[in-house]
Amino acid sequence: MSTQYVERHRGTLDAALEAIRTRAFYSAFPESPSPRVYGEDAAPQGQAAFDALRGADFGVTTPGAQGTVVSERSPFGLPLGVAYPRVPADGLDALLAAARRGLPAWREAGPDGRAGIALEILARLHARIFELAHAVMHTSGQAFVMAFQAGGAHALDRALEAVAYAYAEQTRTPASVVWEKPGKKEPLRIEKRFHAVGKGVGLVVGCNTFPTWNAFPGFFASLVTGNAVVVKPHPRAVLPLAITVQVAREVLAEAGLDPDLVTLAAEDPADRLAAKLATRPEVRVVDFTGSGAFGRWLEEHATQAVVYAEKNGVNHVVVDSTDDFRGLTANLAFSLSLFTGQMCTTPQNILVPRDGIETDEGHKSFEDVGAGVAAAIEKLLGDDARAVELLGGVVSEDVLARIESAPPRGQVVLPSRAVAHPAFPDATVRTPTLVAVDAKDEDVYGTECFGPVSFLVATDGTDQSLDLFRSVVGEHGAMTAAVYSTDARVLDATETAAVESGVHLSCNLTDGVYVNQSAAFSDFHGTGGNPAANATLTDGHFVAGRFVVVQSRRHAATAG
Amino acid sequence: MSTQYVERHRGTLDAALEAIRTRAFYSAFPESPSPRVYGEDAAPQGQAAFDALRGADFGVTTPGAQGTVVSERSPFGLPLGVAYPRVPADGLDALLAAARRGLPAWREAGPDGRAGIALEILARLHARIFELAHAVMHTSGQAFVMAFQAGGAHALDRALEAVAYAYAEQTRTPASVVWEKPGKKEPLRIEKRFHAVGKGVGLVVGCNTFPTWNAFPGFFASLVTGNAVVVKPHPRAVLPLAITVQVAREVLAEAGLDPDLVTLAAEDPADRLAAKLATRPEVRVVDFTGSGAFGRWLEEHATQAVVYAEKNGVNHVVVDSTDDFRGLTANLAFSLSLFTGQMCTTPQNILVPRDGIETDEGHKSFEDVGAGVAAAIEKLLGDDARAVELLGGVVSEDVLARIESAPPRGQVVLPSRAVAHPAFPDATVRTPTLVAVDAKDEDVYGTECFGPVSFLVATDGTDQSLDLFRSVVGEHGAMTAAVYSTDARVLDATETAAVESGVHLSCNLTDGVYVNQSAAFSDFHGTGGNPAANATLTDGHFVAGRFVVVQSRRHAATAG
Repeated sequence: MSTQYVERHRGTLDAALEAIRTRAFYSAFPESPSPRVYGEDAAPQGQAAFDALRGADFGVTTPGAQGTVVSERSPFGLPLGVAYPRVPADGLDALLAAARRGLPAWREAGPDGRAGIALEILARLHARIFELAHAVMHTSGQAFVMAFQAGGAHALDRALEAVAYAYAEQTRTPASVVWEKPGKKEPLRIEKRFHAVGKGVGLVVGCNTFPTWNAFPGFFASLVTGNAVVVKPHPRAVLPLAITVQVAREVLAEAGLDPDLVTLAAEDPADRLAAKLATRPEVRVVDFTGSGAFGRWLEEHATQAVVYAEKNGVNHVVVDSTDDFRGLTANLAFSLSLFTGQMCTTPQNILVPRDGIETDEGHKSFEDVGAGVAAAIEKLLGDDARAVELLGGVVSEDVLARIESAPPRGQVVLPSRAVAHPAFPDATVRTPTLVAVDAKDEDVYGTECFGPVSFLVATDGTDQSLDLFRSVVGEHGAMTAAVYSTDARVLDATETAAVESGVHLSCNLTDGVYVNQSAAFSDFHGTGGNPAANATLTDGHFVAGRFVVVQSRRHAATAG
Repeated sequence: MSTQYVERHRGTLDAALEAIRTRAFYSAFPESPSPRVYGEDAAPQGQAAFDALRGADFGVTTPGAQGTVVSERSPFGLPLGVAYPRVPADGLDALLAAARRGLPAWREAGPDGRAGIALEILARLHARIFELAHAVMHTSGQAFVMAFQAGGAHALDRALEAVAYAYAEQTRTPASVVWEKPGKKEPLRIEKRFHAVGKGVGLVVGCNTFPTWNAFPGFFASLVTGNAVVVKPHPRAVLPLAITVQVAREVLAEAGLDPDLVTLAAEDPADRLAAKLATRPEVRVVDFTGSGAFGRWLEEHATQAVVYAEKNGVNHVVVDSTDDFRGLTANLAFSLSLFTGQMCTTPQNILVPRDGIETDEGHKSFEDVGAGVAAAIEKLLGDDARAVELLGGVVSEDVLARIESAPPRGQVVLPSRAVAHPAFPDATVRTPTLVAVDAKDEDVYGTECFGPVSFLVATDGTDQSLDLFRSVVGEHGAMTAAVYSTDARVLDATETAAVESGVHLSCNLTDGVYVNQSAAFSDFHGTGGNPAANATLTDGHFVAGRFVVVQSRRHAATAG
């Protein structure tokens, strides 16, 4: 078993290992859902496979489960009705005992064996990418192409990146060495063996908006480093991770390993399984994406585990000046609109001097800047049929409530409007809203308002913009930041502020790349250096806490 | 500044980087205090330098300090009387503000600049190695040669190992890359920069028995990854770390950096500075060696920081059979005697079948094994003048109390005896004691008894020995384990038990290498996989949590 799969995928692994070293462009999973790439049959077959899942019991078993639970609803209004085995609180003993049962054989598989299994899982998920995309679409609200890309191809690339880091980290120490210390007479020769040993059970707590993209790195990092993985999906986004677990169990079983090394812990939300699982002694690694409150709770209470938590933050754009006003507004319009601003990387606060900015189109007042961004959004989303493919659906009642309560919080520069979805009449689709406020209104813009609500903040100038950026990010964290300036000193000052605040910075993006997108193998997602997240996807730190190296040593046979 | 020091020490850094990759033998600092290695003048000059420190104010300033504190006493009875600036609880604001002041310039120095500074500090500490050895000797109780080796040369090697890992971890991501994504027309080209950014202030909490060896890895790992470091030494072992801080501040100042990047926080023990410092928001990394109770407190309360804690455990030797009974007893005798058993790696429980074992000298009963180890200890320590050079002094009243309360806990196989030190009449020197107990006496041997008290545990056989090993280590942890067996199946079973318990294993050591010693660059110290320690010295995990990578990106200039 141990080398069969890794040899099949060795080329992919080697390319990924090279990519994480150079951080240059690399992708193993084509992001275009075009028939020219995937063939004519792939799309209809994926659609049919997804349709067959609806209104039925999902084909996965979970130790400790009793009965089933149905907890999803599509933001597009499509009835789902998929039933999953429900894990009640009193099922955790059985679940975790089963999860641990396969650990010795999993450890024996070694880094190569485990990486091979992971790569085979990725290949089979890739074969189901259209089905997976529909599952992501109808749980998160992402439009289809985005679900295919962010929820499919890019998520698979992020997973492969985690596999590569996990493999590199485990193999940076050799499996064995003969240590030879020079002596007065004979050298002292000791044979040493080094075993990479997983910590135990890893828990992956999924989120609603990016069920695969945010969960895959932790899932594969824990798995490849020798842990069992219990997946606790968000109750409204179970299906994409259920498919993932199903595929993983299938590959493990085929390889003669215990399929319970990967399990799905679907819940009735009232059972609060995540908190119960995260503090179990068997659980030694926790990956979480979600609310700041629960993320902080995990960091403070799951002290028996290593916790990798992406919480939330307040993303800023510092607008100082530009030589491409049209590019600036178009770029921001796209970032604010994509997936209805429901990304942890979407800008929230756009800091603009109240006296306006210099541009290639001459001086623009604060109002001009707001009007320019608003016009760009209206242009981008003017056609409903095109708009819905960019916006997708509103993921939750909470986000809807935030949109509706935004207008009285400042001066509405661009109101949100409801968009009719041509294919899904029951879909909930909204455009983003822009609200102008003053620097003094920190009670409005100074905390996270997740969803398509952005604030144009009038500041005394770029110096104050940077001060506000530092203070809000210092307190609440941020996943992204952007700056527009033609002044090298302003770019440097913003980069220093970003570095000292621990937030990644995008400078003067105008075309083809957006502040809210990060590319696997090159861009890091989060830094671990501010309150928004305590780790980054994906680097050495993200994998190193998931396993230990245990050593044995003995006198080596004398040479000759 | 930034390249001067690293270029001076590039050869050492490169050799260390190679050593951590191969884990083969490497040492940069000669362990022999012989005049043939260090020259005729080194020893007397070091002695004189040490003597000049006694009874005087130590030459280091600490922001926030008020008055001085004298808190050390030599286990050899030598008056020390060194006075250090005392940091009271209300001095922490000033101390931490000063520590943070130099962070921007320290970040700008980059991985090369910081590694260079660290290597220069190591070189200057090495130049003071005899002075440092006397300081370690008279605070920890280590005999001189051991203080020179473990507290000097080996500690410097461990520090260099940490420098190498910290450097490797920061440079595994390039400083910049041009990312070029193929497009339909032009490729999309983005220039990306990656900055390694320290977390903030690192706190190093020193221990009494190994003030340098256990503190250096965290100190240098935090420093090289861009943090300021506050050193809070054990009140009875300040001097070795005071010298370290003095040297570090001297090098930083010479390089034009803020010397307050490294500070000494000596305390009146009643101030409990470690707990106060460890939970300050400015402190983002904590390195600790010491009691299990405080280690667990840190893990549960210093949740704003990454905590690397070496606590305590119960080390086991599984005795099954041997083809070198004399080697076995001699090897164990040395391990139990070295530094009066006051090492976190000293074996405590020697598990022996009650029916005895097979050896090259024929069958040995349980009593024969105990008598053999006892005889080997008596032979090793028969001559007082030689004995004191192996034993050193008893570090604390607590250890002395444990020796004195041992006899009624079982059947004394070898009593401890007081040894007169020929050079230091007031020294407290004791030989180790061996106490035989039964497997059922887990209340006696099942928890840590730090110091020269070891238990010969009579078991039903090796299977039960392995069960006890697993259960005690599972609950209390261990830093080391050893096995003696001529049966490959027993060796394999013990290795599996060790791997699953997360403890390093030494197999059939008989000559020249001992279970309680670990060699820098090759042996890991602790695993992070059991309750004794949550990290190992030194690997990728030990350095990765101390810094983050912050990225910036912008459109690249078009090619051509």
